[in-house]
Amino acid sequence: MKSCIVWQTDFSLDWPFVATMRGVCKQVDASIECIDSTHTIEKFNVLEASQQLQYVEPYWPKGTVFVSVVDPGVGTKRKACIALLNDGNYVVTPDNGTLTHVYYNVGIQEVREIDETRHRYEGTEAVSVFHGRDIFAYAAAKLASGKITFEEVGKAYPVEDIVLLDKEYLKASVTSDVIEGIVSNVSDPFGSIVFNILTEDFQRVGYKEYDVVHVKLENEQGIYFEQDVPYVKSFGYVDIGEPVLFNSSSEYISLGLNQDSFKDKYHVKAGLLWKAHLYKVKK
Amino acid sequence: MKSCIVWQTDFSLDWPFVATMRGVCKQVDASIECIDSTHTIEKFNVLEASQQLQYVEPYWPKGTVFVSVVDPGVGTKRKACIALLNDGNYVVTPDNGTLTHVYYNVGIQEVREIDETRHRYEGTEAVSVFHGRDIFAYAAAKLASGKITFEEVGKAYPVEDIVLLDKEYLKASVTSDVIEGIVSNVSDPFGSIVFNILTEDFQRVGYKEYDVVHVKLENEQGIYFEQDVPYVKSFGYVDIGEPVLFNSSSEYISLGLNQDSFKDKYHVKAGLLWKAHLYKVKK
Amino acid sequence: MKSCIVWQTDFSLDWPFVATMRGVCKQVDASIECIDSTHTIEKFNVLEASQQLQYVEPYWPKGTVFVSVVDPGVGTKRKACIALLNDGNYVVTPDNGTLTHVYYNVGIQEVREIDETRHRYEGTEAVSVFHGRDIFAYAAAKLASGKITFEEVGKAYPVEDIVLLDKEYLKASVTSDVIEGIVSNVSDPFGSIVFNILTEDFQRVGYKEYDVVHVKLENEQGIYFEQDVPYVKSFGYVDIGEPVLFNSSSEYISLGLNQDSFKDKYHVKAGLLWKAHLYKVKK
Repeated sequence: MKSCIVWQTDFSLDWPFVATMRGVCKQVDASIECIDSTHTIEKFNVLEASQQLQYVEPYWPKGTVFVSVVDPGVGTKRKACIALLNDGNYVVTPDNGTLTHVYYNVGIQEVREIDETRHRYEGTEAVSVFHGRDIFAYAAAKLASGKITFEEVGKAYPVEDIVLLDKEYLKASVTSDVIEGIVSNVSDPFGSIVFNILTEDFQRVGYKEYDVVHVKLENEQGIYFEQDVPYVKSFGYVDIGEPVLFNSSSEYISLGLNQDSFKDKYHVKAGLLWKAHLYKVKK
Repeated sequence: MKSCIVWQTDFSLDWPFVATMRGVCKQVDASIECIDSTHTIEKFNVLEASQQLQYVEPYWPKGTVFVSVVDPGVGTKRKACIALLNDGNYVVTPDNGTLTHVYYNVGIQEVREIDETRHRYEGTEAVSVFHGRDIFAYAAAKLASGKITFEEVGKAYPVEDIVLLDKEYLKASVTSDVIEGIVSNVSDPFGSIVFNILTEDFQRVGYKEYDVVHVKLENEQGIYFEQDVPYVKSFGYVDIGEPVLFNSSSEYISLGLNQDSFKDKYHVKAGLLWKAHLYKVKK
Repeated sequence: MKSCIVWQTDFSLDWPFVATMRGVCKQVDASIECIDSTHTIEKFNVLEASQQLQYVEPYWPKGTVFVSVVDPGVGTKRKACIALLNDGNYVVTPDNGTLTHVYYNVGIQEVREIDETRHRYEGTEAVSVFHGRDIFAYAAAKLASGKITFEEVGKAYPVEDIVLLDKEYLKASVTSDVIEGIVSNVSDPFGSIVFNILTEDFQRVGYKEYDVVHVKLENEQGIYFEQDVPYVKSFGYVDIGEPVLFNSSSEYISLGLNQDSFKDKYHVKAGLLWKAHLYKVKK
C-alpha cells in the first residue's frame, strides 16, 4: 500500500487547479491515492494553514504525505521544503510559517529544501505561479511512491531556521484564577471559536463539567462578548441559541452556540489582539 | 475489494473535519475507499439528510457503508446506530430521523446501537462534540473492512423503535382529479423543486407527456406560484426561463425553469405547510 | 491499473447528484477510481467547460477518461458522444462546444455517438434530465473498465461535425506592435484574468521579463482598466494590491493583482467583446 497524499490549499475546488496537481501525481504513480483535507483555507492565511495541518495530521497513519499550499510568496525567494515529523509523517509546503503548529506539537526531525533542478515537472519552467502543481505535487508524489528517498528531496537545513509564527497562538498561560488567552481559531463548520487554552491545562487548574465560567472577549475596539457560560459536554445541554463552553474536537477549549453560529453573531475573529478572559463563577 | 464508505454530513469541506474522519478510516484499514456524497446538507436538517441518503443509496453496489452525520443532538442521549437495509447496504448514523426514507422505501432488516465502549476512537474520551470522527467513522471503518461483523457493532433494538419523520414527505395521495401534495425537497443544483408525488402514481392516474397541468403552490402566507405548465421530458422543451413539469432524477415529479432557478425566483421552500395542488388542464 | 475517470460538471457538490454518478461507475467496476476536477463550472457555460477540460487534460496519464457534463440541452436532440483525443485520452460529453479547446489544441482522432439503446443505466428510461448519471457515467465506466471497446460506444461520425465555439477564444493574432486580444477566461482562484495570448507568441514577438506593458481593457460600455504593468515572474515582485502581467499556469498570458482579485476590483468578464490591447512601453 502506497502512502496517501493529503492536500490542503487556498485554491478552492471551484476551478480545476487541484485536478492538475492530482494528475501530476498519477503520472508519477497511478496507484497513489490523493485525498483532500480542505481547499478553502482563507487565501494567503498561513496561520490557518498551520492550524488546519495540525488538526488533521494526528489522525493519519504513519508515512502519510501532507501537501500544504498556502503560498503568498510563490515564485519568490521563500524556500520550498519537505519536513519529516517526529511521528513519521511528511509535510510538503512553502517554508512560510505553515509548519509552526506541527513544529511545536509534533516536532520536526529533519527538513530539506526541494531541489527544483531535479524535482520540477518537465515543461513548466516558464511558469512561476503554480509551484503547487509544478514542484510540491511532483516532489510529494515521488516521495510517496518511493521513487525518491527523503534524502533525495534536496539539501537538509537546520530545523531552527524554519519560519515560525508567534508561539502565543498555541498556548495560553494557564496558571492563575483568571485565564488570559486569545481567540486562536474561528475555522469551524458550526461557527464556534477556539481559544489557545489547552483542555488539559484548563482541567488541570480545576475546571469541571457544569462549572459556570465568566467569559469576556475584547480587542482594541471594545468588548464583543461578556457572559456567564456553562462548561458542558456538548451543545444539547443548553437551549437553542445559548452559549456553551466545551472541549473542542482539537485539544483546545471552544465557545459556541447551540444550533447557531457564535462567530457570526458576535463578529469575533482570530488573532493576537482578540483577547479572552475566563474565570470560574461558581460550580 | 473492500466496501466503499460513502459520506454525507453538514460539516462542509471548508474545514478539515471531514479529513480527520477519513484518516481514522485509513488507520483502521489503508485500503478502504472513502467517497463523498455531500457535506453541505443544511445544518441540522435531518429531513434533507434522510432525502439525500435515499437519493444516493440505490446507485451503489451491495455492501456499501453509508455514513450520515447530521447530528444536532451530538453528545446527548440520542442513539448512535448502524442499520442493515434490505438491499444489503449499511447506514451509520445518529438515530434521529435520518433513516426515514430508507425505512419506507428500501426497508430496514436490522438496526444495532453502536457500543461506544468498544467502538470509540482511542484518546477522544474527553470530546463529546465530534461523534462523526470518534464513533461513526471508526465503527464504519471496522465494519467496511471486515474487522468486526454487524453483530459486533452492538446490541440490536427493534426496527419499530427507529425515529421517523412524517410519512407525508414520502408520498402524496394521488387518487382524485386534483392532486394535493407538498413541496418535499428543494435540494437541486439547478433550483428545481420536488413534490411528494411519485412519478409512478402521477402516470398511473393518467398524466402523459405534453399534458398541460395547472400548478398552484401556497403556504399559510399565500400563493407563491399559480400557472399552467407543460409536462415534458426535459428543460429544453420550453423557452429559457419558462416552467416545466418533469420526471425528476429521483422517483418524484419536479417543477423547474429552463436555465433558471425556480426556487430562487418563487422563494419556495420544502415542508409540510408548502402545499401543492395540481390538475390537468388539457392534453 | 484501471484508468481513472476525471469529472467536471456544473452540478456543484452541494447535493448528492455527483455521488449517484460515482455509484453507477462502482456498480460497473468497483476498482474504478473517480476523481473530481471541478463541479462548479458556471451553469450552462460551455465555453468554461471547454477551457477547464483543456486546462486539466494534459496533466493526466494516457488513457484517462474525462467526463464533462455541462448540458443545457439535456434530453433534447444534441448528441451524447465520446471523443478519442490524439494523446490517447477520452472525453465523454454532450457534443455542444465542450470539445472546442481539445479539438484545436490536442486534436481529436475519432468521435462516436453513445448508443443509448445499449448504454443507458437500466431503470432510468422515464428520466430525461440526468444523462450525467444515466448515460455519461455509465458509458464512461464501461469504457474505463474495459467492459466495452471504444468501437462499441456507438457509431463514429465525422470529426468535422463536432460542434465548436469561436476559434478566437483560443488564439489572438500576435504579429504587430500592439497586440489585440480578448479576455478569454476569468476562472482563477485568485481572481486573475487570462488573455487569448499564448505565452509562446508573446515571447516570440519580443516581450521579456521586467518589460513594462501598457494594458487597456474595454468593451462596448467603455474602458475598464488602463495602466502600465510590469511583466514579471510572479505576484511577489510588486507591492500588495499592484497589478502584474505574468505567464499563467496555462499556456496563456495573465493579468492579476498581488494578493487581491483583479476580476473583482475591475469587474471584468470573459468574452469576445472584452477587448484587450497591449503594447510595450519600455524595457
